[in-house]
Order: sequence, then C-alpha cells, then structure tokens
Amino acid sequence: MRLSNPMKRFKSHRPRWLKMHFRYHPETMFQEASHDKQDDVQAILAYGAALTDRTLERLLPAPDSPPHSIHRAMRHSIFAGGKRLRPLFAVETARMIAGPSLDESSAAELGCALEMIHTYSLIHDDLPALDNDDLRRGQPTCHVLFGDAIAILAGDALQTLAFQTIARLACPPVATVAILADLADAISTGVGRDLPGNLPPGMIGGQVMDIEGEGAPPTAELVERIHRAKTGALFTASVVTGGHFAQASHDQIARLRTFGEKAGLAFQIVDDVLDRTQDSAQLGKTAGKDTASDKATWPAVFGIDRSLHDARELVADAFAALAPFGSAADRLKSLASYVTTRTR
Amino acid sequence: MRLSNPMKRFKSHRPRWLKMHFRYHPETMFQEASHDKQDDVQAILAYGAALTDRTLERLLPAPDSPPHSIHRAMRHSIFAGGKRLRPLFAVETARMIAGPSLDESSAAELGCALEMIHTYSLIHDDLPALDNDDLRRGQPTCHVLFGDAIAILAGDALQTLAFQTIARLACPPVATVAILADLADAISTGVGRDLPGNLPPGMIGGQVMDIEGEGAPPTAELVERIHRAKTGALFTASVVTGGHFAQASHDQIARLRTFGEKAGLAFQIVDDVLDRTQDSAQLGKTAGKDTASDKATWPAVFGIDRSLHDARELVADAFAALAPFGSAADRLKSLASYVTTRTR
Repeated sequence: MRLSNPMKRFKSHRPRWLKMHFRYHPETMFQEASHDKQDDVQAILAYGAALTDRTLERLLPAPDSPPHSIHRAMRHSIFAGGKRLRPLFAVETARMIAGPSLDESSAAELGCALEMIHTYSLIHDDLPALDNDDLRRGQPTCHVLFGDAIAILAGDALQTLAFQTIARLACPPVATVAILADLADAISTGVGRDLPGNLPPGMIGGQVMDIEGEGAPPTAELVERIHRAKTGALFTASVVTGGHFAQASHDQIARLRTFGEKAGLAFQIVDDVLDRTQDSAQLGKTAGKDTASDKATWPAVFGIDRSLHDARELVADAFAALAPFGSAADRLKSLASYVTTRTR
Repeated sequence: MRLSNPMKRFKSHRPRWLKMHFRYHPETMFQEASHDKQDDVQAILAYGAALTDRTLERLLPAPDSPPHSIHRAMRHSIFAGGKRLRPLFAVETARMIAGPSLDESSAAELGCALEMIHTYSLIHDDLPALDNDDLRRGQPTCHVLFGDAIAILAGDALQTLAFQTIARLACPPVATVAILADLADAISTGVGRDLPGNLPPGMIGGQVMDIEGEGAPPTAELVERIHRAKTGALFTASVVTGGHFAQASHDQIARLRTFGEKAGLAFQIVDDVLDRTQDSAQLGKTAGKDTASDKATWPAVFGIDRSLHDARELVADAFAALAPFGSAADRLKSLASYVTTRTR
C-alpha cells in the first residue's frame, strides 16, 4: 500500500497570498502565526515520516528473502516506530538548498541511510554486553526477539546497508564522496592518525567515552564531549550530508555544520530531561535508565531548569547560523523548535 | 621506523634481460623458472605485508589517543599477524591495470580498508554469542582481552574506519563510488529490494546462512553458497576494487570478477582442508572447530582429495580469466597459486 501524501492536503488549504506573506516576512510569521506553525511542524513530521517509511520499505530486504532471520531482525528494529528525525533533517536541509528542483526520492534515500546507522547503533547499544535494555520504542529490543548473534549481525548489516545506499544516491560522484566522508567520520571513534585533524570523536567514540566514564561523577566538560560525539555528530551529519546532496557551497556547508552542532546538542539535552521527567510508557523505552546507571547527562550536572534554558539558547544559536537562508530555512527551524519542545 | 622496501632488493638482483624475457614469454617462465617463482611469491608476500602494516600504522588511531580502550582493541586485532592477503590482491590487481604509474601508497590504503573489514568480521565472529573462539592468529581474541562491549564496538568502528579510508582514496570520485558500491555489496546480507538484482549474498549473509544451517547435514549446494558469500564476496571485492582504483575498463572488471570468484572459492576450500589436517599450533587458531561444530565445509561434503582437486581446477579457471592481461598478470597468478598450496 502506498501511503497518501500528507503534504498535498496541507498545501491545499493554505491560500497562495498567505504563503507569499510567509515567504517574505518570516519575523511576522513567527509572531502572528504560532498556531499555523504548529500545524506546519506536524505536517512536516508526518510527511517526512511517511516518506522515510515508504523509502525504507523499498531499500530493506524483504522479510521472506533469505537469509530470513537477519532480514526480519533488521526490519523489526527499523520499523519499530522511530520519529525519523535524522531523515527529516537531511531531506529538509536538501530542500532548503535545492528548492523545488530537489530529487526528493533520492534525498529520502540519504535520509534512510542515516536512519539505518541510527538503528544499528541502537541495536548494539541495547545488547546485554552494553546497556542490556529489553524495551525500545515500546517494543522488545532486537536481541530479545532474535538472540544476541543475529542482533549483532543485524546491526553490522544495517551499517553496511547505509553505505550501499549512499553508493547509489542520485547526485554527482563528488557529492557522494563528500557525503561518505562526513557520515563515516561522524560515526567513528574519532579520526585516524593520518586523517585531517581537529574533528571531534564520532558516535562510537561517544559510546566508549560513556562506558569508560561510568562510575566517576560526570563533569560538565565530559558530558558535553560525550553528547557532541554520541548523538551530536550523527545529527550534524544529517544536516551536512543533506547539504552535500543538494550541492551546497563551502560557506553554506559551514553554516549547516554550526546549525547541526547546536541543534543536535539541544536535542540530546531535551532527551536527557525527558528521561528524568517522563515514565517508560510515555517514552516508549525504559525511563530513568540514565539516572539509575549514574550516566553522564546534562540534568545530572546542571539540573532540569538550566538544561531547558541551555537547550533554548542552543536553538537560538542554531537559528542564527541559518539567517542568510531567509524564509527558505523555515521548515528546518520548525523542526529544530520541535525537538526542544517535544514531550516524548 | 620506516621499514625498508623489500622490492628494491628483489628488483636489484634480477638483470634487465631476464625481466624482458619474463615479460614476453610467460609460458616459458612458468616451466623454466619454478624456483624463481617461489622466490617471487615470497617477495610479493613480504613486500605486500610490510606495505600494508606500514599503511595501517598510519590509518589506525594511535593507542594513546582517546578513547583508549577501543583504539587499543582495534589495534590488537588488526596487528595480530594476518597474512594481508586481501590487501595484496587489491594492490597487485591495481598494479596489473595501472602499471608503473600506480599510486601505490593510496592503493595500499584501499588494501587496508579491506583488511579493516576482514578484521571487523573476525572480531564479531569470535564473540561468545557467535563462534565463541578464544584464539585467533595465535593470540587471544579481542573480547578475551577487552571484554564483549569493547569488542563489539571495535568491530563496528573498524567497519566505519574502512569507509572513512575509502572516502579519502586518491582516485577520481567516480572510481571511489564504484569501490564503495562493490565493497558494501560484498559485505552485506544480500542486496536490498530496490538494489540491482542477481547479486549473491555477501559476507554477513554467509555468516547468517552458516548459523541458520547448523545442525542440518551440509549439502554441496549450501556449502558453495555459504563459501561464495562468507569469504568469496570480500575476496572478489578485493580484486574488483583494486581494478576500479586503477580505472579498469568494464570488460577488465568482468574478468577480474571471475578471477576473484574462482580464486576466492579455492582459497576457502584450502582453508577448510587446513582446518581438518593441521593442529592449532600450526594454524595459529583453534583447529578442528569446523568439524567439531558440524559446520558446512567443502571436505565435509566432498572429502579431502576431491577438495584439493576442486581448488586446483578453480585456480586454473581463475588463471584463464586473466589470459588477456598476459605477463602483467604474473604477480596476481603467483598469489593465487600460493593460496592453494599454503600450509597455514
């Protein structure tokens, strides 16, 4: 079944003059149209999630294609109801740069590659040898259903499938290579000795810092380093690779990187706060895990109020980086606002 | 310390007329120079291993770069004394296509990416949840020294580092994208629904078929499918990506693929035979594991004699695919002969 396109509905009941007004007066829009903005972000979220799910269905091996066990395990975890935020940020960034000429179907494939990476990291993170978590997005985790061996290999295969997908994107080879470099760096332990320096550790580096830091009282500096690596780097890569896909200029990429870093850190801070203030049923995963295992989180160091304040400041900084894009950045900004006000 | 270049020494005591003779009379060389050929392959092996080790030292994060535990785990497994066959096949294929203009330093980086992938698969394969092996290349396996959590993440990070390395190869972007596609397909579970069909399952697919097939008596068809996927696909990718790196033509790539598939299957058959006929000290890993766990192997289905016969036939087929390359293929052929006559 093909899902219907929620954007079509959304577009149809907004008169042309209103869109024009929004395009040229983003400040006014922000003040006068707060109700409309909420509609906006819900429509963007619904549209992006449907686009991502449809594209994942196309890219993932079918459940009845051999070898069955791993394909079912990969599909279980990737279709377990994620919010698809990374694909959304990638596609909307590409849309901001390319405008109406965007090849949305292929941009969605880039988004799916990011979601595959995110899901692989969750599957391995949940394993008994790591966080030992039985519940994720309200569903049993991969190893609970398929056993540790298949869960390990399903994570491995999702990382690989992400790179298979990158290899086939409909963009110039030079853009594909830029996407490959930024994505692979973002999910690494940090850069190798001979690779360009001054890059922070990536996703796996953050996970290891988290493991190495357990037991010791978390410091502000450590928490920030872990967050920037563990979640921030892939989040930033979603935005930056979306830019590469749409052939953004060097200067545009630099702005996108700043936006991604600020918004990504805000996203993780809010995630930490939700872990403290919501119960498992609301979150769809085991709540309070971070507190229980004494992990390095923002509220553990700064408290809840300061955490929410920091998140708001970071979003303001993120918005500032997008200033030269004008109203073309509105959809991205709506998404960034959403990630700091969401309740699950 | 920079290792000296063994090829220089090797080249210096072979007079120019002898090289000329070899270049234009490969058949004669094969019959008359069997002693020299053995010297050849030992020199090629030593040179390739030193080149690979030197390049890996450059590409792997230093042991004292944070986070320490994972970088030490990655280095332990990658510097545990592998024969570096995949890098050798990649570099020698690139040399055959490009000739003296080969950028050997960057070709070696491609070889290292293949070795990183191979090592990642060994680390995960050895985990308690999978093969539960304590010994590999005569050394304790990664999880024995660093624990399961770091071993899982070290494998993940080596897969990622392979793609970071691919992203920075000194070849045209279109060649990098071709390398990316072939390598990622080769280590996948099989292709996604929307990817070009008719490709066999890759490395992870083979591992899962192996797990799913345990307990059932192995059939000839299953053993061949597992071998082609589990070892053959990455072996073939080593040869094919070496060709892409050197910008081989479409027709050349097709011949390289046939060579890789035949030689790769022969390589795995010999590996199976060695597992049956050698002890652990000779192999540097736990011998007889395949027999003990009733796994699908070539000798289990066909017996030792037929296995060795099949390996020889496959090597002959592999050589035939290289016929149009003439004597430029001699080094690759020497390597392929070596893998079917080695004793460890």
